[in-house]
Amino acid sequence: MRIGVVGATGAVGREMIEELAESSLTSDVKVELFASPRSEGETIAYRGETLKVNAYSLEKVKGCDYILMSAGGTFSKAHSPAISSQDSVVIDNSSAFRMDPKIPLIIPEVNGDVLQGFTQGIIANPNCSTIQMLVAINPLKLKFGLKMIVVATYQSVSGSGQKGIKELSDQLQDYLKFEKPNHVLYPQPIASNVLSAIGPFEDGQNCEEELKMVNETHKILGLPGLPVLATSARVPVFACHSEAINVQLGREADLEEVKQAFKQAPGLIYNETTSQSELPSPFHCTGKKEVFVARLRTLFGEPRSEWFQFWNVADNLKKGAATNAVQILEHLLKNKSS
Amino acid sequence: MRIGVVGATGAVGREMIEELAESSLTSDVKVELFASPRSEGETIAYRGETLKVNAYSLEKVKGCDYILMSAGGTFSKAHSPAISSQDSVVIDNSSAFRMDPKIPLIIPEVNGDVLQGFTQGIIANPNCSTIQMLVAINPLKLKFGLKMIVVATYQSVSGSGQKGIKELSDQLQDYLKFEKPNHVLYPQPIASNVLSAIGPFEDGQNCEEELKMVNETHKILGLPGLPVLATSARVPVFACHSEAINVQLGREADLEEVKQAFKQAPGLIYNETTSQSELPSPFHCTGKKEVFVARLRTLFGEPRSEWFQFWNVADNLKKGAATNAVQILEHLLKNKSS
Repeated sequence: MRIGVVGATGAVGREMIEELAESSLTSDVKVELFASPRSEGETIAYRGETLKVNAYSLEKVKGCDYILMSAGGTFSKAHSPAISSQDSVVIDNSSAFRMDPKIPLIIPEVNGDVLQGFTQGIIANPNCSTIQMLVAINPLKLKFGLKMIVVATYQSVSGSGQKGIKELSDQLQDYLKFEKPNHVLYPQPIASNVLSAIGPFEDGQNCEEELKMVNETHKILGLPGLPVLATSARVPVFACHSEAINVQLGREADLEEVKQAFKQAPGLIYNETTSQSELPSPFHCTGKKEVFVARLRTLFGEPRSEWFQFWNVADNLKKGAATNAVQILEHLLKNKSS
Repeated sequence: MRIGVVGATGAVGREMIEELAESSLTSDVKVELFASPRSEGETIAYRGETLKVNAYSLEKVKGCDYILMSAGGTFSKAHSPAISSQDSVVIDNSSAFRMDPKIPLIIPEVNGDVLQGFTQGIIANPNCSTIQMLVAINPLKLKFGLKMIVVATYQSVSGSGQKGIKELSDQLQDYLKFEKPNHVLYPQPIASNVLSAIGPFEDGQNCEEELKMVNETHKILGLPGLPVLATSARVPVFACHSEAINVQLGREADLEEVKQAFKQAPGLIYNETTSQSELPSPFHCTGKKEVFVARLRTLFGEPRSEWFQFWNVADNLKKGAATNAVQILEHLLKNKSS
């Protein structure tokens, strides 16, 4: 079997290679790396080997059984259909195909069953903020039903790739030298600031990231009319997205019932700590594959409530991107072998 | 007239002196500064003069008509009653008396009328996050009624005073030298991190800051049963608190009606920009006295809705503390003269 990573030198691409190395893939699987011509010849470690990065061409990826694609929406839109029509399954991290009704949009723990019988085509990896939110909300939906979601995000600069990391790092250095921070990538400085929109305004009101959270939630949960009030904001943090999530369940529930739903949920670590030094945070969760949930609360602290509040953290490059993509791959391989 | 500032060398105290200097106080009013004995002899500029900081004693503040108090809750609890019983009106920035039913808790634009006839005693200055939220929500409450608030905060380290500013600054320097950040004040590093609780957990579920937002909102708006779902988080930002606010109004409203309510609201600057470089943010709002509102949205982008979302920024040391305290003072002086 051959697996190709396209966009191998980007922030997500590098994490994909790490996730493949740590996955259940057997040692006979060949992993091949592709990127733009300017990265040709770079090397990246994989399971003790040193893999060379190749300049991408349709010809070179021919014969790969699976392609993990993380090269941006424009590239994916232009190339993924051709790759998939030469018989590679494409798992695409971009937003290019997510809302296409013919393309599965998959979080394996949530709707992996959609892939039953899937053998050919493109599979879309959801938006990072959507993935970590739905890993936590889906178990509540299954057990209690769902009337409404109100969420505010605290998103790290690694969501903008290596450019985002460089922008914050450069600005912090300017800041500490009392120089005016220079900004290239974001519309305002991000150091010591909060940006209240992520991506362009698309419908005159919501920004791109908020619409992704709304629309992808509708598609993945199969609840097209669900009210989702999302606010997405960028904070000066290098890694991990945090989310303040409020849900109105389909019925009143006990705090204990909701806790149990979280404790039994796949891919989720529910943390009951009241020690603030141990609360899940970017500091604690960077590099982790799971979604972390803490600070579960009922309305007015009452024992039963329709409304619940909780805090949610995940590494956006891991479960928000690379981990989820490789889990989709593992899910396909398991389906195939069973 | 004599006005004393107690806690004059703290982050809020210094802003109070600046606000007094820029206020409508006439030049015959004498401003006196008080702090702990270790600050005695320090000097602070006020309207071209150089004022000396005195070590606080009950004797020394005797005869002050008004005391602006910003020396922490413990100090205020111990000293404000005695100061007020020797006939100074105390405007207290701490949380010590806020929920005392006999003590007015005042945002002049929102409930300044409560002070009609007030001549003696303590007045509490609300929590920073509550002030900026209610300056924006009160005009909506007056026009449409209010069923529910769901809010998530992005709070700066200046809310913890000069210690908070030092902690973030020290940690950023460690961070850029690839050294492990040392933390003294907060339970986790704050550089490149988000802390999902502010203040100790008080009722087993909510942290102190969240309960302040809930309880003070109930008191100030006179709506003791209003559901307020608050999540308060600290972000690595030096100044200004931001808030993602969602409100369910008492009735359906047009986007245009809500805009008008914001445009006519006192103390509030409503910003309609869709230019992301101009969106209100800590970068733009530091040092400003007003509350900034932007990104107004209806549910699903529809023209009418019960639910509205908006973004809210204010300088927590200004309107969130010093500006509001000095506005209370001005309100009292205006009442007196009228």
